Amino acid sequence: MILLISGPSGAGKSTVYQELMRREPRLRFSVSTTTRPPRAGETEGVDYHFVDEPAFDRLVAADAFLEWAHVHDRRYGTRRDHVRQLEAAGHIPLLDIDVQGGQQVLAQLGGDVVSVFVWPPSWQALEERLRGRGTDTDEVIATRLQNARWEVGFADRYTYWVINDDVAAAVARLQAILLAEACRRERLPGPPVRAAE
Amino acid sequence: MILLISGPSGAGKSTVYQELMRREPRLRFSVSTTTRPPRAGETEGVDYHFVDEPAFDRLVAADAFLEWAHVHDRRYGTRRDHVRQLEAAGHIPLLDIDVQGGQQVLAQLGGDVVSVFVWPPSWQALEERLRGRGTDTDEVIATRLQNARWEVGFADRYTYWVINDDVAAAVARLQAILLAEACRRERLPGPPVRAAE
Repeated sequence: MILLISGPSGAGKSTVYQELMRREPRLRFSVSTTTRPPRAGETEGVDYHFVDEPAFDRLVAADAFLEWAHVHDRRYGTRRDHVRQLEAAGHIPLLDIDVQGGQQVLAQLGGDVVSVFVWPPSWQALEERLRGRGTDTDEVIATRLQNARWEVGFADRYTYWVINDDVAAAVARLQAILLAEACRRERLPGPPVRAAE
Repeated sequence: MILLISGPSGAGKSTVYQELMRREPRLRFSVSTTTRPPRAGETEGVDYHFVDEPAFDRLVAADAFLEWAHVHDRRYGTRRDHVRQLEAAGHIPLLDIDVQGGQQVLAQLGGDVVSVFVWPPSWQALEERLRGRGTDTDEVIATRLQNARWEVGFADRYTYWVINDDVAAAVARLQAILLAEACRRERLPGPPVRAAE
């Protein structure tokens, strides 16, 4: 099982899944690979795997990415082997990726993916959250809002919709989704009880 | 949304859903209609709707049943209008019916039904539970075990499998299933946030 979370910037995704990860020790964040240079405080292998452009090219050529995309002139991708390693260790990989990447993951992994779109409670709340960061110019905020409008156009491709009207409630919904998915027949190894027993 | 629960006699279904109903006030037990005479302590409209054979015939002729079946020379059925009334009042109807009836409900209501098959933790546990009641003869127990073997043959038709290895854990799984299902895109009225807002 792989947990795919998408949703517009400002919907509060990371707050929700950080709390979710505290409650669900099987979840492990899948660290993306990027050509963007590290920002202050970012750690290689924790926030991102930082690579240069030729290294990213080689990974693309080797089909190493489950998904990758251009965002703001930089490239971001999820390495197939990283996701597989998490699964092999008994974890549930958590992928926080945009709708472009989400489509690639769904196309490739299909039924193994539990897909969740996180919505802000309202458009106004989203704008307030984006402004509240206080770090971005009006132009950047306008771009993010435009991008958010584009992202929600893909929400129909996701199985679950979680509205982040309240962080605790949103976390409880995600936890319920994980537990319920683990009870789906097709995810279970076989009948727990055989008549011949 | 309608919650359909099936599983062999002795799997502990009723213990699980009685506790579930205490935690989920929206759930309402759908009371079956039967031609079986009331046993001591049973109340009309609470345990069953008790009717005579001609009355049952008339209900069958009027297509009043969502499902009905013969069990041990008696007939049992779920009235369509009873289920609709519960839904109209904002409740989630809970149907505890055998696999025969379950197939009829799934065939008629399809996607509105959340179907759960409750498994005993083992065949031995099932037999012990059936014997533990102390009220049945060996012959009755043998019939119930045979019937249980037949019922588990239908488990593949159910979306969720809940193993009743521990009542609290089984209730938590069912609660998670209800909450997760309420987050499925197709059960939601539409996007919570529109770009035009």
